[in-house]
Amino acid sequence: MAKRIAAFGEVMMRMQVPGYESLAQASSLQYSFSGTGVNIASALSRFGHSSYLVSTLPNNSIGEAATAYLRKLGIQTSFLSRAGKYVGMYFLENGFGIRPSRVTYSDRLGSSFNTSAPDTYDFSKIAQEIDIVHFCGITLAMNDSVRDQMKEFASEVKKSSGTVVFDCNFRPSLWGTDGYTLAKPHYEEMLGFADIVMMNEKDAIFTLGMETQEVESLAQLKDLIPKVAEKYGISVIAGTHRLVNRDNTHSLRGYIYKEGAFEFSEMLTFSVYDRIGAGDAYASGIIHGELSGFTTERTIAYASAAAMLAHTVVGDTPTSTEAEVLQAMTDKAFDVER
Amino acid sequence: MAKRIAAFGEVMMRMQVPGYESLAQASSLQYSFSGTGVNIASALSRFGHSSYLVSTLPNNSIGEAATAYLRKLGIQTSFLSRAGKYVGMYFLENGFGIRPSRVTYSDRLGSSFNTSAPDTYDFSKIAQEIDIVHFCGITLAMNDSVRDQMKEFASEVKKSSGTVVFDCNFRPSLWGTDGYTLAKPHYEEMLGFADIVMMNEKDAIFTLGMETQEVESLAQLKDLIPKVAEKYGISVIAGTHRLVNRDNTHSLRGYIYKEGAFEFSEMLTFSVYDRIGAGDAYASGIIHGELSGFTTERTIAYASAAAMLAHTVVGDTPTSTEAEVLQAMTDKAFDVER
Amino acid sequence: MAKRIAAFGEVMMRMQVPGYESLAQASSLQYSFSGTGVNIASALSRFGHSSYLVSTLPNNSIGEAATAYLRKLGIQTSFLSRAGKYVGMYFLENGFGIRPSRVTYSDRLGSSFNTSAPDTYDFSKIAQEIDIVHFCGITLAMNDSVRDQMKEFASEVKKSSGTVVFDCNFRPSLWGTDGYTLAKPHYEEMLGFADIVMMNEKDAIFTLGMETQEVESLAQLKDLIPKVAEKYGISVIAGTHRLVNRDNTHSLRGYIYKEGAFEFSEMLTFSVYDRIGAGDAYASGIIHGELSGFTTERTIAYASAAAMLAHTVVGDTPTSTEAEVLQAMTDKAFDVER
Amino acid sequence: MAKRIAAFGEVMMRMQVPGYESLAQASSLQYSFSGTGVNIASALSRFGHSSYLVSTLPNNSIGEAATAYLRKLGIQTSFLSRAGKYVGMYFLENGFGIRPSRVTYSDRLGSSFNTSAPDTYDFSKIAQEIDIVHFCGITLAMNDSVRDQMKEFASEVKKSSGTVVFDCNFRPSLWGTDGYTLAKPHYEEMLGFADIVMMNEKDAIFTLGMETQEVESLAQLKDLIPKVAEKYGISVIAGTHRLVNRDNTHSLRGYIYKEGAFEFSEMLTFSVYDRIGAGDAYASGIIHGELSGFTTERTIAYASAAAMLAHTVVGDTPTSTEAEVLQAMTDKAFDVER
Amino acid sequence: MAKRIAAFGEVMMRMQVPGYESLAQASSLQYSFSGTGVNIASALSRFGHSSYLVSTLPNNSIGEAATAYLRKLGIQTSFLSRAGKYVGMYFLENGFGIRPSRVTYSDRLGSSFNTSAPDTYDFSKIAQEIDIVHFCGITLAMNDSVRDQMKEFASEVKKSSGTVVFDCNFRPSLWGTDGYTLAKPHYEEMLGFADIVMMNEKDAIFTLGMETQEVESLAQLKDLIPKVAEKYGISVIAGTHRLVNRDNTHSLRGYIYKEGAFEFSEMLTFSVYDRIGAGDAYASGIIHGELSGFTTERTIAYASAAAMLAHTVVGDTPTSTEAEVLQAMTDKAFDVER
Amino acid sequence: MAKRIAAFGEVMMRMQVPGYESLAQASSLQYSFSGTGVNIASALSRFGHSSYLVSTLPNNSIGEAATAYLRKLGIQTSFLSRAGKYVGMYFLENGFGIRPSRVTYSDRLGSSFNTSAPDTYDFSKIAQEIDIVHFCGITLAMNDSVRDQMKEFASEVKKSSGTVVFDCNFRPSLWGTDGYTLAKPHYEEMLGFADIVMMNEKDAIFTLGMETQEVESLAQLKDLIPKVAEKYGISVIAGTHRLVNRDNTHSLRGYIYKEGAFEFSEMLTFSVYDRIGAGDAYASGIIHGELSGFTTERTIAYASAAAMLAHTVVGDTPTSTEAEVLQAMTDKAFDVER
Repeated sequence: MAKRIAAFGEVMMRMQVPGYESLAQASSLQYSFSGTGVNIASALSRFGHSSYLVSTLPNNSIGEAATAYLRKLGIQTSFLSRAGKYVGMYFLENGFGIRPSRVTYSDRLGSSFNTSAPDTYDFSKIAQEIDIVHFCGITLAMNDSVRDQMKEFASEVKKSSGTVVFDCNFRPSLWGTDGYTLAKPHYEEMLGFADIVMMNEKDAIFTLGMETQEVESLAQLKDLIPKVAEKYGISVIAGTHRLVNRDNTHSLRGYIYKEGAFEFSEMLTFSVYDRIGAGDAYASGIIHGELSGFTTERTIAYASAAAMLAHTVVGDTPTSTEAEVLQAMTDKAFDVER
Repeated sequence: MAKRIAAFGEVMMRMQVPGYESLAQASSLQYSFSGTGVNIASALSRFGHSSYLVSTLPNNSIGEAATAYLRKLGIQTSFLSRAGKYVGMYFLENGFGIRPSRVTYSDRLGSSFNTSAPDTYDFSKIAQEIDIVHFCGITLAMNDSVRDQMKEFASEVKKSSGTVVFDCNFRPSLWGTDGYTLAKPHYEEMLGFADIVMMNEKDAIFTLGMETQEVESLAQLKDLIPKVAEKYGISVIAGTHRLVNRDNTHSLRGYIYKEGAFEFSEMLTFSVYDRIGAGDAYASGIIHGELSGFTTERTIAYASAAAMLAHTVVGDTPTSTEAEVLQAMTDKAFDVER
Repeated sequence: MAKRIAAFGEVMMRMQVPGYESLAQASSLQYSFSGTGVNIASALSRFGHSSYLVSTLPNNSIGEAATAYLRKLGIQTSFLSRAGKYVGMYFLENGFGIRPSRVTYSDRLGSSFNTSAPDTYDFSKIAQEIDIVHFCGITLAMNDSVRDQMKEFASEVKKSSGTVVFDCNFRPSLWGTDGYTLAKPHYEEMLGFADIVMMNEKDAIFTLGMETQEVESLAQLKDLIPKVAEKYGISVIAGTHRLVNRDNTHSLRGYIYKEGAFEFSEMLTFSVYDRIGAGDAYASGIIHGELSGFTTERTIAYASAAAMLAHTVVGDTPTSTEAEVLQAMTDKAFDVER
Repeated sequence: MAKRIAAFGEVMMRMQVPGYESLAQASSLQYSFSGTGVNIASALSRFGHSSYLVSTLPNNSIGEAATAYLRKLGIQTSFLSRAGKYVGMYFLENGFGIRPSRVTYSDRLGSSFNTSAPDTYDFSKIAQEIDIVHFCGITLAMNDSVRDQMKEFASEVKKSSGTVVFDCNFRPSLWGTDGYTLAKPHYEEMLGFADIVMMNEKDAIFTLGMETQEVESLAQLKDLIPKVAEKYGISVIAGTHRLVNRDNTHSLRGYIYKEGAFEFSEMLTFSVYDRIGAGDAYASGIIHGELSGFTTERTIAYASAAAMLAHTVVGDTPTSTEAEVLQAMTDKAFDVER
Repeated sequence: MAKRIAAFGEVMMRMQVPGYESLAQASSLQYSFSGTGVNIASALSRFGHSSYLVSTLPNNSIGEAATAYLRKLGIQTSFLSRAGKYVGMYFLENGFGIRPSRVTYSDRLGSSFNTSAPDTYDFSKIAQEIDIVHFCGITLAMNDSVRDQMKEFASEVKKSSGTVVFDCNFRPSLWGTDGYTLAKPHYEEMLGFADIVMMNEKDAIFTLGMETQEVESLAQLKDLIPKVAEKYGISVIAGTHRLVNRDNTHSLRGYIYKEGAFEFSEMLTFSVYDRIGAGDAYASGIIHGELSGFTTERTIAYASAAAMLAHTVVGDTPTSTEAEVLQAMTDKAFDVER
Repeated sequence: MAKRIAAFGEVMMRMQVPGYESLAQASSLQYSFSGTGVNIASALSRFGHSSYLVSTLPNNSIGEAATAYLRKLGIQTSFLSRAGKYVGMYFLENGFGIRPSRVTYSDRLGSSFNTSAPDTYDFSKIAQEIDIVHFCGITLAMNDSVRDQMKEFASEVKKSSGTVVFDCNFRPSLWGTDGYTLAKPHYEEMLGFADIVMMNEKDAIFTLGMETQEVESLAQLKDLIPKVAEKYGISVIAGTHRLVNRDNTHSLRGYIYKEGAFEFSEMLTFSVYDRIGAGDAYASGIIHGELSGFTTERTIAYASAAAMLAHTVVGDTPTSTEAEVLQAMTDKAFDVER
């Protein structure tokens, strides 16, 4: 039942100011290691699968700390390479109420992952040892070398009859001016490999340059997603709509499109502790539902509950077990469990 | 005016993960010492009475730390025995929003309290030095030896014309299968000694096996509590109804039944910081009202305000003074006091 | 464009119990240095001005720590004197929900600032090097020597054609019985120097002993403030009305009265992290608006947004930049910025 | 066997910068409550006696925290008064190696203890309930009112046939110029009441103005102490010689003079964690030896071991039990105990 | 080159008071998970081998935290069972200088490991997947069920031609009176299986009841160890002599006996940060030397350096890599590496 | 008397694991901002001079935090530029005893300082506003652009008749293979500008390629330093010899060469808390001595004491005042100061 899953992506060092002080006020940081691939691999490990990260870390104290952290999360580290000198880092200052959180990046282009040699990974061998692989659009923004690795890996997985998941995530600040134009061919190439895709109507419009007559986002979604599925030959497309409310809660509704039909979750509203990484929990829920043969109704409920829980957990990386997600799907407020 | 009060019960070591991390994520714990008896004795000490705990602690560093902690809370330690090797412990992981808190116990059956020799305490002498004693149903779940101590102590207090308080608190996980059947005779025996009892209609139905035609909980309460009072010859019965709301608040309404009449508090709704121990604050308020000759109206308002405040205080143990409870009864939101 | 501004006032050492424990429960304190003058000078430094504090600190480790802290806040320390032996201190225990915060003061009358020699400061020289000075009514409550310094400084600034700002802040506990009677002549004297005044109708009624037929606070404000402006020859008067709500939010509406006309901000409602010092953020916004030639409409919106943000920041002292205040004026809930 | 002992003195709030940062570098403090009387009472409570502190604390959060802390230390608080507004405080910055520790005081003259009304304590009643009382020379430096209380208390204890202990501790900075001249009559008056006195030759020379032909400190001690004992009619005099070594160790030798004979301990050399309060541990050891009928040889060994251990304990206040002191007297290095 | 190694033993939860406070003084604990098997498996993983722990953990939050911690240490968890309810725990209070550290245990006999069902582990299958197994005498002290598991496991490894390592570690407090008599047959049975044994002359005399005419410990060692090797057919015996010095340093000399010859390391003297677990580092060094075909001279130098480094590392569990041990063997004081 | 001094150099973010854990064990970091220029400017500010840093910081949260930190240290920030995106960072893991500390760098070549535009600073204007400037050899290792800025700045200071200080500090890892050959012409160019130079015989031999017949380091020093002074026309050359001892102490002897004569300090031996930055304290002492007209004997004693104290202070940056250095020159062990 349990599957073997690999995620390809950079490990970031997250450095968070504790509490609500700014970097200028505080003097200590909490650190952890995350990244889309880390989050996906960790979440799926908690859902009962064997998870691997395919990445590169430096051969120093930080690489050692990152590797130990990944092991703690339950991620298999046998496909990790050790080379280069740096990890990408980001600093997180928590907002409060009307005051927004702030994220400040270090130079991730010089990281071990982004400077790894073309032949760093034996993708052909890895592809034979896994059932499914996950890629993220953020990795596409890095440089040609990483893009080539990503496409080669996807290609090898297809050759081995594995499943390819692609998250269309697009971060404009990483592409600069004319970002959409630069990005589009790479996204289209990845969509060509993909069986399961995470996206919504905004990705279709901006990244893929598609057009619609509809003006309201739900109508745009219903118009465009079937076209994307058809054009690129994708089995499953899923994503979310999210509202940030003024009272420290968020509202989220998930959708899935499969075999010509849409399924939507309820609109969930919940208190938020740490918003970062919740999208990866959602994607993990979709993947788990597909791997487990859930109905789309159950998959969308599961993925949405997993995303909701991820907002209540410390750190980027989802930590809920399958049992905890199933319990959250019953959707009640709880007293202490003892 | 100030009375001498004793509580009989186990001292638990509470080990709480700070913030919102899980035990698997964190690396430090905050510890304190609590338990129903500790909470009652501490609360009544803050209301101006002399409070004693009757319990047993190990003769090692942990027993020493627990004793110092009890002294800090204002509890007299002259009736404490030192024997055995362990204290019961529990680990608390805080939930957030939709994610529930988790409590994990260590093996409390081997604790100094639960393994103390039958002749550990000189109950006859203690009974003569106090005005009132408090027992809790959780202690009944431990073993025959502790149950015998509890009944002997209650019997000695009655001989000395003291007042016996019994909290019907029932925790199913401690009794196992057929728990209600096993527990009922012990609860009935304790109710036979009791002058003041903490319970609601659920205890009457499940623990005492009483029946009612009513279906709604308030109607069940009004039907059953007078029957309990009559059957067991109890002067005062009191308790609460509680709602856990979805926005991190609870709602609570207290009741008291005395001399054939019910009195209810307003429904109070308030933000919750730490829910554990709030029931003991309520019981302490009822006891204080009775000891102080309050009207039932004032007693129920006082006890409800004390319980509400206990939800806002760090740790299990209520710390509010009488003045603070009286201020909270005025029920307004406050700006900084300076 | 940037102005030179001085604030005159005591530096207080703030010692805060972390989290929600009481002083009796905890064992550590977070400390910082603040005070009305500190808050005003820091806020205006973040708005782009050159800020000075005119005060006295002891020549020991605490004075050294305070001076370093002021420098960190961006305050020029060249007008600071070093003499005496103590700083005023206060202890802050955070409340939660219905449980109020508590502030406990040490003996501030013996502080370096309040015992400084009459000739400590060269006010004539300082007056020539600044454009504007800020005073607070709390300083008036100290003793004759400090009151004399304050009036001399105001007088010198007027001689140098500078602007005098006076905040009518009145704290009854500092004046004792007959406080209003004792205070009135000093407040009137300061109002005589002032160009910009922070106050509302309560100050007019209680501190200045003015009378009105109106009963509702807004009507009282509209009746009395123009009379104050006329009587004392004040160009600009501004202040706020504040509501403390039961759900951990406050509501605040600012007003400004200038050239015969009132301007009001929207009623803002927001979550509160630390309420202390928010009034100083408001005053700083008014001063900045006036110094920058904003319309009264923009000034009142700016000051109210600055005050709102100050409720979300750790510590007494406002830390928001002009850019952050302008962003908050757009008044939306935010997701993470990255 | 166990005796009832009271100590008279101020409770100080100790605020320590954690680790080795300065106040200007750090942002948090560890706080506790101590003072010579606190240290003596706590130490003797750990040696098996009933200990009381006779002092005054403010009726606010700090007084409440101090009282809870004293209870935790095992000190009876029934002779504590609550009045006034402040406690004395001191800030401690730890030195390292060649860099010395720094202590900075707040204004203790305005403390509750030092401003307590003349009739605050019922000394006659207290004297009847105790066997022995401890006074310290530092209290003599405060003001006439406290000095009068001290002498009245000593006088009442003598009337009740109790034992008076006086520690000659003299701190020049508290007396100012001509300190010795001002202090001498008060010290002589206290020595007139005292049965057990803590001092060494320096106190005899500087505080009492005695003269000796000897130049070396041991010879001075042997010359002067017998004269002091005779002149003031003192049964037991004890004290220490201490060396501060360059390698983070101290060396200490204790002496006792009783019935015309000196007894000296070995010279003990040991690593130092926290030096403050170690003298009080020594005094407590002397008192315990005298109360327990030890030989002078055993008393001096016990007191010196208690002092040595107090250098290894966190905080001012000695926490070692009698069993731990006896173990330390065996004077070996230890591996882990388990 | 890299071998597969399993260790059989209990996982303990270590709860350490930070700094130098006692449990009665402090309010927080640092926790980690260790045990002889954990330490051995972790150390050998850092030396490049594949390490497995064979143990049982409860199926709750604590078991989950322990498992994550073991993964972080680099230990394979595929041979871990999840059953029972508790883990053994111990509390550690750090000593300072002359004041010894204190260890206080919770009830480990009720732990998941010590109550695991007889058929919990498939030893036959495990034996086939590993090259070498490690056992510790402390496990022998638990109960018959665990002893039977241990012997069955050893027997299976021998059947599979694997290597058995046995550490004779004996803790008297776990066996009670007549401990040596009770323990001897079990130790002899284990020695019968063992290829590599950790012990010294004291184990031979006390646990095995052997006699010698020698009085000095080195002479006893040289007399007895060859007899042990011969009697039980052991290939390699190794161990240490240790001195605890008064200046916070320890001195350690290792020995190995193989093929009829002794080899000794230099006497190493070094500062100690955390002594617990250092013996396991030594054993790991011996095992690594044997697995790697080192000369006995190199093995003894390697094991002694590994033990020395383990005294400088936070926590019970050795974390040094092979490269770090080799560097330490060069035995110089180091400046910062950068 | 007080001079205006500027230092040119990069601001590094120091991220230190608290206590003695490794990055893989810990989860939090203490951060501060330092660098040779920061250390020099801070130290000289504490000695009474006006200090400026000439550097570039990013215009984000980290740049803001760094600027606030520099202000706190007492450094004038008016010559700071804000551009680029990153700061250089390094991670520090503390060693213990035989286990060395580890420093791991992030990519500093991409920092704001190292990528600043050629015309970032108005060196001509800055040169006119200062008396003296400090440069460090580490900056020479960065890139041509920074080297050009450095030489232009030195040249401008010479034109304005200011004093140039150059520290020959050479870090091989920053230059790569053939480092000495690459570096030599740049060092020689800087020596041509310099009035005061920090170096010892190793710099002469390795960096400048000079030869000597002597074999012992003191003899080499006495042979080569006069030749360096003559060849490059340098007024003052100073430096240290350092020994790292095995007992957590260092030994240090300073020298100065001026007007044809050597002066040496005593050999100082002292406990070390934080070694980083101590060389900058020494250089600051030499500069202060020269600026203040001390004799070389006094200068060398002052600089050595400043360096010794810097080893006892938390963080890279020296914080001792002139008074504290003068006190340390008296060279005694100290008890608590109060």
